[in-house]
Amino acid sequence: MLSNHFQNGVETVRHAWSRIPNSEESQFVDDAVGLVRKSDGSSVESLDYEVIENFAYREEQARRGKLYVSYLLVVKWLFALLIGIGTGLAAVFINLSVENFAGWKFSLTFSIIQKSYIAGFLLYALINLVLVFSSVYIVTQFAPAAAGSGIPEIKGYLNGVDIHGILLLRTLIGKIFGSIGSVGGGLALGKEGPLVHTGACIASLLGQGGSTKYHINSRWFQVFRSDRDRRDLVTCGCAAGVAAAFRAPVGGVLFALEEVTSWWRSQLMWRVFFTSAIVAVVVRTAMGWCKNGNCGHFGSGGFIIWDISDGQEDYSFAELLPMAIIGVIGGLLGALFNQLTLYISSWRRNHLHKKGSRVKIIEACLVSLLTSIISFCLPLLRECSPCPESDPTSGIECPRPPGMYGNYVNFFCSSDKEYNDLATIFFNTQDDAIRNLFSAKTIHEYSSQSLLTFLVMFYSLAVLTFGTAVPAGQFVPGIMIGSTYGRLVGMFVVKYYKKLNIEEGTYALLGAASFLGGSMRMTVSLCVIMVEITNNLKLLPLIMLVLLISKAVGDAFNEGLYEEQARLRGIPLLESRPKYEMRNMTAKEACGSGRVISLPRVVKVSDVVSILRSNKHNGFPVIDHTRSGESLVIGLVLRSHLLVILQSKVDFQHSPLLSDPRGGDRSIRHDSHEFAKPVSSKGICIDDIHLSPDDLEMYIDLAPFLNPSPYIVPEDMSLTKVYNLFRQLGLRHLFVVPRPSRVLGLITRKDLMIEDTENVNTLELQSTSVRNRHHNKRPTTRNSDVERPLLNGLLVGSE
Amino acid sequence: MLSNHFQNGVETVRHAWSRIPNSEESQFVDDAVGLVRKSDGSSVESLDYEVIENFAYREEQARRGKLYVSYLLVVKWLFALLIGIGTGLAAVFINLSVENFAGWKFSLTFSIIQKSYIAGFLLYALINLVLVFSSVYIVTQFAPAAAGSGIPEIKGYLNGVDIHGILLLRTLIGKIFGSIGSVGGGLALGKEGPLVHTGACIASLLGQGGSTKYHINSRWFQVFRSDRDRRDLVTCGCAAGVAAAFRAPVGGVLFALEEVTSWWRSQLMWRVFFTSAIVAVVVRTAMGWCKNGNCGHFGSGGFIIWDISDGQEDYSFAELLPMAIIGVIGGLLGALFNQLTLYISSWRRNHLHKKGSRVKIIEACLVSLLTSIISFCLPLLRECSPCPESDPTSGIECPRPPGMYGNYVNFFCSSDKEYNDLATIFFNTQDDAIRNLFSAKTIHEYSSQSLLTFLVMFYSLAVLTFGTAVPAGQFVPGIMIGSTYGRLVGMFVVKYYKKLNIEEGTYALLGAASFLGGSMRMTVSLCVIMVEITNNLKLLPLIMLVLLISKAVGDAFNEGLYEEQARLRGIPLLESRPKYEMRNMTAKEACGSGRVISLPRVVKVSDVVSILRSNKHNGFPVIDHTRSGESLVIGLVLRSHLLVILQSKVDFQHSPLLSDPRGGDRSIRHDSHEFAKPVSSKGICIDDIHLSPDDLEMYIDLAPFLNPSPYIVPEDMSLTKVYNLFRQLGLRHLFVVPRPSRVLGLITRKDLMIEDTENVNTLELQSTSVRNRHHNKRPTTRNSDVERPLLNGLLVGSE
Repeated sequence: MLSNHFQNGVETVRHAWSRIPNSEESQFVDDAVGLVRKSDGSSVESLDYEVIENFAYREEQARRGKLYVSYLLVVKWLFALLIGIGTGLAAVFINLSVENFAGWKFSLTFSIIQKSYIAGFLLYALINLVLVFSSVYIVTQFAPAAAGSGIPEIKGYLNGVDIHGILLLRTLIGKIFGSIGSVGGGLALGKEGPLVHTGACIASLLGQGGSTKYHINSRWFQVFRSDRDRRDLVTCGCAAGVAAAFRAPVGGVLFALEEVTSWWRSQLMWRVFFTSAIVAVVVRTAMGWCKNGNCGHFGSGGFIIWDISDGQEDYSFAELLPMAIIGVIGGLLGALFNQLTLYISSWRRNHLHKKGSRVKIIEACLVSLLTSIISFCLPLLRECSPCPESDPTSGIECPRPPGMYGNYVNFFCSSDKEYNDLATIFFNTQDDAIRNLFSAKTIHEYSSQSLLTFLVMFYSLAVLTFGTAVPAGQFVPGIMIGSTYGRLVGMFVVKYYKKLNIEEGTYALLGAASFLGGSMRMTVSLCVIMVEITNNLKLLPLIMLVLLISKAVGDAFNEGLYEEQARLRGIPLLESRPKYEMRNMTAKEACGSGRVISLPRVVKVSDVVSILRSNKHNGFPVIDHTRSGESLVIGLVLRSHLLVILQSKVDFQHSPLLSDPRGGDRSIRHDSHEFAKPVSSKGICIDDIHLSPDDLEMYIDLAPFLNPSPYIVPEDMSLTKVYNLFRQLGLRHLFVVPRPSRVLGLITRKDLMIEDTENVNTLELQSTSVRNRHHNKRPTTRNSDVERPLLNGLLVGSE
Repeated sequence: MLSNHFQNGVETVRHAWSRIPNSEESQFVDDAVGLVRKSDGSSVESLDYEVIENFAYREEQARRGKLYVSYLLVVKWLFALLIGIGTGLAAVFINLSVENFAGWKFSLTFSIIQKSYIAGFLLYALINLVLVFSSVYIVTQFAPAAAGSGIPEIKGYLNGVDIHGILLLRTLIGKIFGSIGSVGGGLALGKEGPLVHTGACIASLLGQGGSTKYHINSRWFQVFRSDRDRRDLVTCGCAAGVAAAFRAPVGGVLFALEEVTSWWRSQLMWRVFFTSAIVAVVVRTAMGWCKNGNCGHFGSGGFIIWDISDGQEDYSFAELLPMAIIGVIGGLLGALFNQLTLYISSWRRNHLHKKGSRVKIIEACLVSLLTSIISFCLPLLRECSPCPESDPTSGIECPRPPGMYGNYVNFFCSSDKEYNDLATIFFNTQDDAIRNLFSAKTIHEYSSQSLLTFLVMFYSLAVLTFGTAVPAGQFVPGIMIGSTYGRLVGMFVVKYYKKLNIEEGTYALLGAASFLGGSMRMTVSLCVIMVEITNNLKLLPLIMLVLLISKAVGDAFNEGLYEEQARLRGIPLLESRPKYEMRNMTAKEACGSGRVISLPRVVKVSDVVSILRSNKHNGFPVIDHTRSGESLVIGLVLRSHLLVILQSKVDFQHSPLLSDPRGGDRSIRHDSHEFAKPVSSKGICIDDIHLSPDDLEMYIDLAPFLNPSPYIVPEDMSLTKVYNLFRQLGLRHLFVVPRPSRVLGLITRKDLMIEDTENVNTLELQSTSVRNRHHNKRPTTRNSDVERPLLNGLLVGSE
């Protein structure tokens, strides 16, 4: 009888949760912003996928009528739409601001250097300094998680590692305004990586219905409580970020697929693609609006589209050799870049940044000054070249008219008909410099000396800038570096191959692809992004060739930039393939010699407290005994759930016997939101909970709070197989158990091919004997859950 | 001691296998072509992923030195290259042949109808009949698996279901020549689906080193013996097929990713993309060569590129309504198409095609005749329209010059300055008809009456043709149907919205997208393919809108075309998501009431034979007893492996005791190729094995042939979780075991974060006590496998 009561009790609890979908308690979850489970000693915390199984999932399932499913579907698509619009608008805002700041800076400087170069330089350096200072100030004082590109962190989040503060509102704000400052301030970094992070932040904030810290939240949006849904939203946000940064919707989807996500479902793909396309529409609309002159200095620049549709159409086989050389150079320089940045970042972390945010601010300002000096003074040392004979059909003027963007910058030249080739790439916004480097029909514009100087200086600046406390992407600097040596190679090809249809710009593009491939080691997504930004499908095979080579060369030296950085930051990414060494290990060996701390089903509060205090485990097996004294593992309880139970105290009972659900009104004690994992807030810590001595003497029945069947592996299973199980299913805890004594059944494909409609009947027929027994006891079969047979057995045993 | 001996024995066996990588036995596997395990009563057989774990994988691991890994990598890329080239050339060959046959047919007919329409019709119908007859003859007599599109079968193969004969050389030949006949013969079907199948066949044949039946095989190519590698190759082949059919490399990758594969690894993506790009290069090169007139009638036609870059540039919000209507129509007509074809195919299978191949031939010929009559005679009934005023800038002539492709076909017209709009779409190759329907700047070319007639007739023909015994794709007919009603809607928009920049061709394109979306329910890949074939990125948001709507509408009625057909053909596809009903079931319930048949470790031959005869199970648990009498599950043995052991007889022993490996020379008894799963050959059947009475009295020790640790689930785990495990890891057998009595350890992310270099040392330190004990016994730790601790225990127990 007791088992029956208990069953009903559990049913009622679940039912009650489903009746209060948006109760007051849900706000609690997002209330405090901070480190999740700080007691671990690290700011890194794995995501808990089992929560889904335990509470949110059950509740979701309980509520999941046909109508609710449709509602959820509509909401998901609505969110995809909103993420697309939000990210698109953020991208437009960032680009608009950067272009206006930079445009204003350059036009002011150009107008002043007509009179005095010194005054011009001072003004130029000052504006840069102010912009960079604003950026680093925002980041250090307000949003420390906004520093860097954010892609390693997002990658970690989607791999199941929660890093403090990466998806907060303040991070979003810091990222947007920090990007404007750092990119507008002319540092050797880009705004593309930060845009990916921005998209992810927007997605996450929308998913949790705003930020509760700033009281900007809405209950209407709080439909996504499972980690999976939140992860899906963040994936959409990443794709949206790439789509916005490069105006490459397909590239965005592939980037999300290849580079960031760890678990991919094909249902998600369509939604991600939809988000990307929305971004493309928003950006296109905004640019159309800007064409009418509504956006100040925002003209042809801003969004990266280096259209090289007038590049060379075909290529001879002899050209494949220099292209392969570009690939090799890209691999070498990219790997070197990864290694250098790794050393410098590690040094910074260990020595410089420990000294506080003041050091970070000074550092960024010094880097800004250095960048200003180099980009202004180096072109001064360079002699101007006479303009080439103008070709009215190409539409390229030499020198370019004052106040405009374009090729052939007249800077410190004695004559009006001259241009400074170093200034054309150095004393310019990066977008324009790249456009100039990619430009076709401008053969012999640059001297190899200038390109080499620029390559060395910019490479050093990029390495130096990487790791300063400002939002920083590596795409644009990578493209700058790559296109410089690409163009250099192109110049040699033009010189020695003596063919008319060779364009240096095409080589610059290949160089850019090769450096990105050598540094980031992305493949398909990078290829598609390059094709989409250059709008030239014909170059696809060449880009692929170069990427193949540069990735292979780079892989011989080290890992990709994001992986290296993730490792440096201590983000434990689980790779998709198990390590080679795992083949020689068993599951038992992997869990080490540590004692397993398990809890009995009914446990004393003081025991729970002491166990939680004594270790940092996040999950505990729960063991019960049958009447015959045999022990049985009845499930897994999570530390976070235990903490919630301890804090609320409503589940405490006086007797160590199993609880009688009819006695108390357990049904309304809990709302599943209490147990939902907080996104951007600190969880409860055991030290925060104050229990009276009376409380400590009470008992808790853990049965309703268990994950009744975590995945299990036998102790001597190869770790390779264990790894695959863990990684593929995105688990957090896995029980290692003794080898079973018997096999109750085999499940094959046939057993899982259940037809939608027939299954219930056939099943009833198949196992009538078993099911009939239960039938009368359960009024509703809908909520009947998996632990039923076990718990029945247990409860019968302990009656 | 015995345990030690045994260990060494196993080591030696493995070592021996690794020494003979390409021994003579490997030919055995590919020798006979036929049905895998026919005794099952069905021609469908699940792939055995556990083979990898058991033999091929161990062997591969044993051989995997650094050098071998690099060698494998090079070979994999070489194969990707070869698949790309092969598929590209096959596509070029098919297109060239089709275009030449069709071109010759139409030009001959046109020259004859100048004199007599009846003679022209007879010739036209005769040529069609001959072509279709050749196609259906090849398919029915030589390659029955080549009928249909092949995509459901490939999808099934990649989902883990092996279907008889889909990847044979004869299927490839049948597919190529059958496609030429059926498409050249003017039936309402396309060559795109068959090209996907062709690519898959080429990939599979390359992977197994040719077809042994026809003695065209090379040992050099036989490096891929694991199912995973073969599956990867077939995935590459699918992508190559799409890339070749539509000249859409990115679309090909996405198609393979979204539609066909069930397990995707990001490492594979880059290789798939490489293959697709190679195909694009091959096709482009061939087309460049054909431009010089080397290819007969092969001119602008053939490869699908309906460039609509001169379509409308922008669109007003008011146009979104008719576009949404197109989406709805597409969803409805697509779902109807799926349903009708399902009924007709099912009727054909159950009634018509049972009567033998003669019926199939007659059926196809009748369909061909009907198609000829409709496509020739319907335009005759249609009055001609006067040509519009010619616009020299558009380059479109009216009527088109004789013998050329293009718009405005003059057919049965009284005047030279007239054209027959129905003939323009009906009496034409499908590629040209689609080009005409998509064409811009040809407003008012078609009357709504003609389009409606064509829509109804072609839709009926497409439904009727679907399921005849010829290779048949549904892409091109789908595009034809869709673009017809799309253009119809476009005409109304032009009429009522009265705006100048509206192009009917754009609406035709949207219609095509909507019908394909409504029928096939593909999303991202279809979208990208449409963008790539029309070469117009600006239409992306519109195509997406239409696809969203049509897919949603279609999903309300039935499943996608390929899923419906797969179900009809009895291909048990495991979907990526568990069914809703599974939530209420436990693992125990799913395996039904069937008794589990397990084997003891040392088993009598006669027992094995009787067990194999008495049931159709493909895997058997193996149980052993410790000295204390406790039973333990020591692994899973496969039926196919038992059959190999029975056939070879070398493992038979006289005593029921554990075998002493030093006694016999077990080390050279087996080659792992014996146990490798045959790709395109019949496995052994129990009835094929002849054993003498003496043999039946002998014993086999199964220990070396076990998969020592299959995945296990507790009996009361929710079937949803079981399904996820089964599906995500691509399993074939799963043990349902009793709930464990204790937990030996918990594996968390931390335990799996093993550093490459440090792990061996730290591990050694951690578990010194355990490992030291084993150390002296084993000269090499490399091959130490997972069953070691267990077997040790077992053997000590039974000494």
